[in-house]
Amino acid sequence: MRILVFNENHHELTRPGIAARFPLGIHGTLAAALRERFGADAEITTATQDQPGYGLGPEELDRTDVLVWWSHLLHAEMDDGTVARLRSRVLAGMGLVVLHSGAGSKLFTALMGTSCDRRWRHGEDRQLVWTVKPGHPIAAGVPNPLVIPHDEMYGEPFDLPDPDELVFISWFSGGEVLRSGACYHRGAGKIFYFSPGDQECPVYHQPEVQHVIANAVRWAAPSAPVASPYVDAQSPEGWWAR
Amino acid sequence: MRILVFNENHHELTRPGIAARFPLGIHGTLAAALRERFGADAEITTATQDQPGYGLGPEELDRTDVLVWWSHLLHAEMDDGTVARLRSRVLAGMGLVVLHSGAGSKLFTALMGTSCDRRWRHGEDRQLVWTVKPGHPIAAGVPNPLVIPHDEMYGEPFDLPDPDELVFISWFSGGEVLRSGACYHRGAGKIFYFSPGDQECPVYHQPEVQHVIANAVRWAAPSAPVASPYVDAQSPEGWWAR
Amino acid sequence: MRILVFNENHHELTRPGIAARFPLGIHGTLAAALRERFGADAEITTATQDQPGYGLGPEELDRTDVLVWWSHLLHAEMDDGTVARLRSRVLAGMGLVVLHSGAGSKLFTALMGTSCDRRWRHGEDRQLVWTVKPGHPIAAGVPNPLVIPHDEMYGEPFDLPDPDELVFISWFSGGEVLRSGACYHRGAGKIFYFSPGDQECPVYHQPEVQHVIANAVRWAAPSAPVASPYVDAQSPEGWWAR
Amino acid sequence: MRILVFNENHHELTRPGIAARFPLGIHGTLAAALRERFGADAEITTATQDQPGYGLGPEELDRTDVLVWWSHLLHAEMDDGTVARLRSRVLAGMGLVVLHSGAGSKLFTALMGTSCDRRWRHGEDRQLVWTVKPGHPIAAGVPNPLVIPHDEMYGEPFDLPDPDELVFISWFSGGEVLRSGACYHRGAGKIFYFSPGDQECPVYHQPEVQHVIANAVRWAAPSAPVASPYVDAQSPEGWWAR
Repeated sequence: MRILVFNENHHELTRPGIAARFPLGIHGTLAAALRERFGADAEITTATQDQPGYGLGPEELDRTDVLVWWSHLLHAEMDDGTVARLRSRVLAGMGLVVLHSGAGSKLFTALMGTSCDRRWRHGEDRQLVWTVKPGHPIAAGVPNPLVIPHDEMYGEPFDLPDPDELVFISWFSGGEVLRSGACYHRGAGKIFYFSPGDQECPVYHQPEVQHVIANAVRWAAPSAPVASPYVDAQSPEGWWAR
Repeated sequence: MRILVFNENHHELTRPGIAARFPLGIHGTLAAALRERFGADAEITTATQDQPGYGLGPEELDRTDVLVWWSHLLHAEMDDGTVARLRSRVLAGMGLVVLHSGAGSKLFTALMGTSCDRRWRHGEDRQLVWTVKPGHPIAAGVPNPLVIPHDEMYGEPFDLPDPDELVFISWFSGGEVLRSGACYHRGAGKIFYFSPGDQECPVYHQPEVQHVIANAVRWAAPSAPVASPYVDAQSPEGWWAR
Repeated sequence: MRILVFNENHHELTRPGIAARFPLGIHGTLAAALRERFGADAEITTATQDQPGYGLGPEELDRTDVLVWWSHLLHAEMDDGTVARLRSRVLAGMGLVVLHSGAGSKLFTALMGTSCDRRWRHGEDRQLVWTVKPGHPIAAGVPNPLVIPHDEMYGEPFDLPDPDELVFISWFSGGEVLRSGACYHRGAGKIFYFSPGDQECPVYHQPEVQHVIANAVRWAAPSAPVASPYVDAQSPEGWWAR
Repeated sequence: MRILVFNENHHELTRPGIAARFPLGIHGTLAAALRERFGADAEITTATQDQPGYGLGPEELDRTDVLVWWSHLLHAEMDDGTVARLRSRVLAGMGLVVLHSGAGSKLFTALMGTSCDRRWRHGEDRQLVWTVKPGHPIAAGVPNPLVIPHDEMYGEPFDLPDPDELVFISWFSGGEVLRSGACYHRGAGKIFYFSPGDQECPVYHQPEVQHVIANAVRWAAPSAPVASPYVDAQSPEGWWAR
């Protein structure tokens, strides 16, 4: 399996406190966590928005099975052509794991069809991530609840389409709830959105959170070579009907 | 519209504190609340498990469009024939609104297929009912969040099938969450489960809660005469295919 | 209710045979059918792609409750700003009924997130539209099956997200099937896709087809004023949790 | 993996023509097909309704990961206690693959909550099984369409709950369609219903049909030991919220 971890990498380059929290960047932190869990079973690389072509050129994409995505402030700056290429690759079967503020990215909103708007609050709410579908592979081995001592609050109403499968719901100490782990199928691709994690909190250093992301990568991985099984094609009179 | 409110009516007859909290019984409290909201648009009657045939005889059922259901301790005592008749009526199009501990009734579990087990805690948690589908008719006019000052806690994991539409998620001060307002279609019938409300708390006296139940009754009402559109029938070679 | 019927109107202006089949245009045909069914209950207007701003300017949109959509060859020519405005209006609650080849429009694919690609075949298949959800309001009064003597074939696999509710499945004499009537919720808006109908066949003159479209308009109509109930907003520490 | 194939085995014992078509019984035919495909990866046994305890005693169940089910005429004769035990095992995570007329079994209807009634026609319709979700593991390697030269017709409306995932839709030469491959989650268990196959037709000898059933068994297999992750239990005030 080939996993590509994308990160906007803007906070890390511009704010020393965040660079100190994530010396490898959020991308490097997640890549290391996945390497630890997948070992030789996966080839794991990273891409950042400050690279040429965001590190998301056709070559990189063509060899990616699952794309892990973190972005926040630079959504509008990503060019539409790249987004269209990424979206096509997902529809053709590439898995996609979108984290936290990546909900507002062009890529995720283009795949969802909705605004993905939600309430939010800086600060350090306690977040409890409850598994509501305990048989789901993304919940395997996850404590119930998963306790995140400090995190940004994201709250309902969250403008998502009804999930195809809802795995997690989060509780926040400030009084809010969120559908925080949601599965979607788009074309032949599987998409998982997972809300925990902020640049201001060390959430991605937490082993249980890393474990969920690794589960999600496994779940989202394509079971067949990435190539759209859909066609917009004229069909002959069917021999099969005779 | 003809609405029948069913209540087990066991607590009211056996525990003075609960009888004092609900002098009309939970059934009478809910019936009065619905009468206030529906006025001349609905005929509202009640039935209790202590009545002959539980007040749910064929005659009563045949003239019911929406059944509102509260039960708790006497689930096992209801005879299977009555449950089968109720279930058939729902599949034929009668609306069903199941409240709180009614989740464990034979009728609801027979329609869901699952155990409907969940965590719970006596005591007086604060419950915040968040609307996650703000365009849904059952959420119309409901404050977001709806605050219930004291209620029993019901918590995830809740063994329900994935809802056809999820309208509410509840937050509890003790740290739990619950899918607390969920829509299902079974046969031609519409079913809404709403978790707030306990015999120990005055939740059914709260106007916002009554408002949700009235919305749910309107949503669940059949749009056509109650008669199953499904058949188990031999079909002739289709004229329509020629 | 204010209904706006949009039509690309390209075939009618460029091909005499199609103009003869639809002397009022597809838009005029549908508008007349809806007027007959809604009478004084709705104000029905039309818009065509050849008009300035496609007839879909902010003023027109602001007073539209349900948009009925037909398009085919000029998808790529519609400017992205208009599409973004239309999409926002749907997410805010405007109903949308998309017909036939409109599946490939920028608006519909932007709301679905998928390519909406499918198989197709010119010619004149017999199409039988089967109701699979007989209690659904869009199926009310629709014969089962609804027989369309001649229509273009659209066949699976159809690259749609899993429908929130699947109402119709079509059978084609050439051997194909299609999920031909599918409901979606996006933001506060309700969307219905209905596949029958082609410029080459008189499908939109058929009363049962017009009846389905009228049912769909009624179903998709917003129950509250069109205004998004979602926000991307900072939330104060919740008073409700205390 | 331990797979148990259950068959009513009534036709085989009472009608020579059917015994000649399935010399091993439908159970033996399916078991042989699965053995060929799973090899040493699975232990495959069979059970029939004429055996003591139907061959479905607690011991047999306790070591079953996936149950494959065929039944037809003797649904009413199975005792409710056995059905309750089977249902509990599914809710605890045992996979279930229900074939054809098994839709009407007590077990399947108890898990679905609906009547599972449908149209049907003896005779020998041509059936084309179309994959509508090409990325789904149950569709892997399945021709699209899968052509079944002769089969009994099962047609819509089919009184099923909305599937959690719809994989196949069938076309019949007589003009009907059917949601013929549908996935459900109930508790921790995964359930697949697959409609092709009748005692009167050699459908279960067809390699493509056997391939689908093997795919379904793999999909339905539990990913964790079979033990319900749900509880009906009093919960302490949560340490996690502090």
